[in-house]
Amino acid sequence: MTTTAPVPTDPARTIRPTGTGQHAEPDGTRVDVPALTGVLLGRYGDLRRDARELLTQERFWRIEGQPVADHRARVLDQLRTLAAEGNVHRAFPVRFGGADDHGGSLARFEELVTADPSLQIKAGVQWGLYASAILHLGTTAHHDRLLPDALSVDVPGAFAMTETGHGSDVASVATTATYDPATEHFVLHTPFRAAWKDYLGNAGQHGTAAVVFAQLITQGPGDPAPVNHGVHAFHVPIRDAATGEFLPGVGGEDDGLKGGLNGIDNGRLWFDHVRVPRADLLNRYGDVAADGSYTSPIASPGRRFFTMLGTLVQGRVSLDGAAVNAARIGLQIAVTYANQRRQFPGADPTDEVVLLDYGQHRRRLLPLLAETYASGFAHEHLLAAFDDVFSGRADTEEGREELETLAAALKPTSTWHALDTLQTCREACGGAGFLTQNRLTSLRADLDVYVTFEGDNTVLYQLVAKRLLTNYAHTVGGDPAVMARLMAEKVTDAALHRMPLARAVQTLVDAGDARRSAGQLREADTQRALLADRAHTMVAELAQALRPARRAAPEVAAALFDAHQHEMIEAARAHAELLQWEAFTRGLDQVADSGTRQVLTWLRDLFGLTVIERHLAWYLLNGRLSAGRARTVTSYIERLLLRLRPHAQDLVDAFGYRDEHVRAEIASGAEARRQGEAREWQRAQRASGQAPVPEPKPRR
Amino acid sequence: MTTTAPVPTDPARTIRPTGTGQHAEPDGTRVDVPALTGVLLGRYGDLRRDARELLTQERFWRIEGQPVADHRARVLDQLRTLAAEGNVHRAFPVRFGGADDHGGSLARFEELVTADPSLQIKAGVQWGLYASAILHLGTTAHHDRLLPDALSVDVPGAFAMTETGHGSDVASVATTATYDPATEHFVLHTPFRAAWKDYLGNAGQHGTAAVVFAQLITQGPGDPAPVNHGVHAFHVPIRDAATGEFLPGVGGEDDGLKGGLNGIDNGRLWFDHVRVPRADLLNRYGDVAADGSYTSPIASPGRRFFTMLGTLVQGRVSLDGAAVNAARIGLQIAVTYANQRRQFPGADPTDEVVLLDYGQHRRRLLPLLAETYASGFAHEHLLAAFDDVFSGRADTEEGREELETLAAALKPTSTWHALDTLQTCREACGGAGFLTQNRLTSLRADLDVYVTFEGDNTVLYQLVAKRLLTNYAHTVGGDPAVMARLMAEKVTDAALHRMPLARAVQTLVDAGDARRSAGQLREADTQRALLADRAHTMVAELAQALRPARRAAPEVAAALFDAHQHEMIEAARAHAELLQWEAFTRGLDQVADSGTRQVLTWLRDLFGLTVIERHLAWYLLNGRLSAGRARTVTSYIERLLLRLRPHAQDLVDAFGYRDEHVRAEIASGAEARRQGEAREWQRAQRASGQAPVPEPKPRR
Repeated sequence: MTTTAPVPTDPARTIRPTGTGQHAEPDGTRVDVPALTGVLLGRYGDLRRDARELLTQERFWRIEGQPVADHRARVLDQLRTLAAEGNVHRAFPVRFGGADDHGGSLARFEELVTADPSLQIKAGVQWGLYASAILHLGTTAHHDRLLPDALSVDVPGAFAMTETGHGSDVASVATTATYDPATEHFVLHTPFRAAWKDYLGNAGQHGTAAVVFAQLITQGPGDPAPVNHGVHAFHVPIRDAATGEFLPGVGGEDDGLKGGLNGIDNGRLWFDHVRVPRADLLNRYGDVAADGSYTSPIASPGRRFFTMLGTLVQGRVSLDGAAVNAARIGLQIAVTYANQRRQFPGADPTDEVVLLDYGQHRRRLLPLLAETYASGFAHEHLLAAFDDVFSGRADTEEGREELETLAAALKPTSTWHALDTLQTCREACGGAGFLTQNRLTSLRADLDVYVTFEGDNTVLYQLVAKRLLTNYAHTVGGDPAVMARLMAEKVTDAALHRMPLARAVQTLVDAGDARRSAGQLREADTQRALLADRAHTMVAELAQALRPARRAAPEVAAALFDAHQHEMIEAARAHAELLQWEAFTRGLDQVADSGTRQVLTWLRDLFGLTVIERHLAWYLLNGRLSAGRARTVTSYIERLLLRLRPHAQDLVDAFGYRDEHVRAEIASGAEARRQGEAREWQRAQRASGQAPVPEPKPRR
Repeated sequence: MTTTAPVPTDPARTIRPTGTGQHAEPDGTRVDVPALTGVLLGRYGDLRRDARELLTQERFWRIEGQPVADHRARVLDQLRTLAAEGNVHRAFPVRFGGADDHGGSLARFEELVTADPSLQIKAGVQWGLYASAILHLGTTAHHDRLLPDALSVDVPGAFAMTETGHGSDVASVATTATYDPATEHFVLHTPFRAAWKDYLGNAGQHGTAAVVFAQLITQGPGDPAPVNHGVHAFHVPIRDAATGEFLPGVGGEDDGLKGGLNGIDNGRLWFDHVRVPRADLLNRYGDVAADGSYTSPIASPGRRFFTMLGTLVQGRVSLDGAAVNAARIGLQIAVTYANQRRQFPGADPTDEVVLLDYGQHRRRLLPLLAETYASGFAHEHLLAAFDDVFSGRADTEEGREELETLAAALKPTSTWHALDTLQTCREACGGAGFLTQNRLTSLRADLDVYVTFEGDNTVLYQLVAKRLLTNYAHTVGGDPAVMARLMAEKVTDAALHRMPLARAVQTLVDAGDARRSAGQLREADTQRALLADRAHTMVAELAQALRPARRAAPEVAAALFDAHQHEMIEAARAHAELLQWEAFTRGLDQVADSGTRQVLTWLRDLFGLTVIERHLAWYLLNGRLSAGRARTVTSYIERLLLRLRPHAQDLVDAFGYRDEHVRAEIASGAEARRQGEAREWQRAQRASGQAPVPEPKPRR
């Protein structure tokens, strides 16, 4: 296995303005870039390096502006190449050429985003959804019969869960699979237009089979009436592989052009009383006997549903990782450009200022860099949790719930962050950022849908909030001491509003020494306390506000939940920010070199304080920060930005991407050459004594 | 002149869920949609209706997914059609078929964005920049010789100002035009790669001429050395119209694919000692005699430069208007969909909840609707100011400065708002929002560059801040009473930190009655006072912070400005928000119908309170709001969202777009039909008594 060099090696990239790139402090402290790359690549570093090496090959790169038909064909071809070269089997059992390595497989898969997000997502459809559904929802017979063709892409498959009328609410899909004991078939049917399967990768053109989710309806010998057992999955051939035509009873249409990811043939499917053999029910969690009797190893229909959907978590995990990688590419481009591009003369009228030496430019880019680091460390934590569950090492109900909550908290946070980052990077590069050759607009367009697919971000945050509320209820229910502490907090909190004078004295003491406050905010414990306090308090307040819903009429309860939906989402976000901060802080321990650890600690502080600044009104409103201390948040951020500025290039170079991954003209060294040539010309002009003189200002 | 019907007339659009659309309060109050449309269309309502009528014709619409070459050809063709049909002359003199109507011309032009933003911007390049530079920077001989072909698009022209190395800093462009008295020519030259003209519409392919900006260098009989008179504009043929080849000495390249606006052929140009006849200097503000003597009606080189660039303001004005229109189209789509789309069962388990009945969905969309209204009213104000100056009615130096500041404040605000709005709308429509057929992603991609071209938003905000600081210095300098009041404010402000107890008492009184506070926040005067206080205080604080720069060494002054760059930008934004709020409030006076005015007043309050909530930390930190009162901001916003919710459809319908402008499948009534069909099917199932029963929950 070859490994990539951790730092880009193009000599053009070494053209850097003074003070940036391998920057050393006066005492010699510098970021050890290769070592930091090692830390960032994490547990699966070797696999990631290997995947990156593979993706230096042009045959995997997106060709910008390629017509949709060609792009789709190219991506299908890339999938088959990956399969043929054995790059996709890792998560599957050894007997199918795999390694039962779930975490490692996802880590490799996440790297595909640098080549072409369409490749990443189409690979996700084929192996992460279609083949994975066969693996996780099917049983040995299905594995033997279906997995080889799924893995090799001899059968491109769709994952037919979403319907036009039902996206996030999977439990309500309207497609039915009614068992007919006379012929031992299920009758798969789409009752109306809104029940068409929709947005399915591989359904628009290439797919010859699909895993179709439908309400399973049976009437066994003991059932007085047909019973709906809820959503189950079926393996269904949909197209004739030779002709590409739909099979009888199956129809659909292409979803057409999309805002991005046009290398994938998303489409719609419908079924008109299609007969599916009994053996094609993926029957791991629910089976139907020849006579129509239904059995399941999971008695509760609700738990069964969530168990079946649990395999979807790997999609969310991988989107989290891919979003972090996309943000890294964006920052690699924008920070490199900001270190080379000059605009407007500075204190020296004969020279222009490098963009990153502008206060606002640092304000725009460096907090995003800090959050990208935080997201990266948090993702490593998520990936480890994922592997613990999927490897079976921690495959408990609690472990799965933890994993799902973690993924539901981090995927929205990192995918929204990636969009913000790519957009800010594009704007920070001005007109050059808008050119497709500089990568940012296409990456952003492709990443756009990451915030609403595989679980709409807003819905996922609500899932997190509900889990946090449940945990809170358990904690409070189980431990009177915790209850007492929480109540004490409530009282203190209430006191702020009822007795502002008393509180004000406390505030006064707190604010006494601004320099001490700044010192405190720099301390990890203070940041943790502030972030944790907010995350916990928001849940506690929500629990209290929602308490009346328990005994209320459904309309009243629904109205109450609705009135607090916004706070639920904010509480989930606060939880995610705390998770990211904790992961970043734990990540610092992995850094052996003291200079590197110092710089990363500043970056962690920048992350923590940026989050606190974002929610400053909350901290002030709830008496957690005095006005005086709150002011130091912003001034300390400004100080951190200045401290981090000289290390910015090293911090993006540590992502370890090569020019073959970045592929942006403005980050290739071209801008540095242009600027160097211009400055040289100006210098020569001045030296020549032949330069025109400026027009004299008129005398008044 | 025909006028469009103000409300969409497609019968499918009338399929609306109960409680939305022409919603009436119990007392009969409703939004008078046609009358409101009239108010929103503003001063140039007839021209706007006429332009919209024209744009119902398919020949002007963007064809999504069209190959770039075809898209470019189509847009050029559309330009020629507009010219041939007499739709583009309005801003030009009567003798060229125009009406000297600058405001009306821009109003028509802004409407083009609904057909295809590429059409809008290419029209802007041809008539707003190229022809307009001839008109405003040239003199009668240029008008006679060049305008007819510019207006008819017989000569497609580029506006060659920006260089690869210099975008916002126009004063530093490096292209030179050196006068040679021997031949009475200017020698136009590009000294190095960074001085190539770049990002120019029409330069990539279609342009046969360009207005080129270059440093004018002359040496008249009285000059001891060559003098640089700064940036001047020249009319320069660049391509052979018959062959499409560059003329001798001219070169360039296509900018290639972009993140949007691919109907425009942006490109680069360079000049290798190209000889330009003396008569082709656009000489209104600076002329060169045969012997090389330079003369100008404006003695100060600085003022001359800003006067020449002053004509650029119309680009900013029109981008502001187009951004408002794009945000309106986005909201028309997302609100219509949110009123028809159902997801997840509600209190009634047999029915699903309409998206806009979710608290978070209202939170996402309605404040954007409020800001879009505010932006629309503010744009009308800007357009009037523009017409006052360009018509000559108020063409004073002060009038121009006011206009430029206004445009520099509003263009960034509305273009960023349009991107936010289109993105939020796209996410609020889920997967459907990502399909190109639903319009949102393409509109957003096209609008993306609006935030960095025609003046980078960040640079424009700094321009606003500088103007505000100058005004502040004049005010304080001129009037001791003002100075005293401002100082008193500073003292009060400082007291907050030095004497928190005293302040706390004040806060206590303030917070005494939360219900009264809510009432106060609803009052226009309170909102105005809060917004104005913040805008003014931020400038005053900046002025104080930057005062030491006046006597400091250049490096020290530069560092001081840099340290406060972020606050300068925030101060400009605060100013823009105040302008928007004032414009919205003045707009209320134009609404005669009391029901409509009531609803619009709630919408104005929502805008004001959303802005205050966004900056709540500032109000708390600076003692402008007590904690208790600050809490009422959010609860009052929630109440306004509930009040406005039933009127949401009417408020977007009042934008007055027809299906031919909106062109989004999900806003066409298709979603309502799908949902209706599904609910009908479910109802029939339940009525039939044949519906499968749910699987019983297991007994414990």
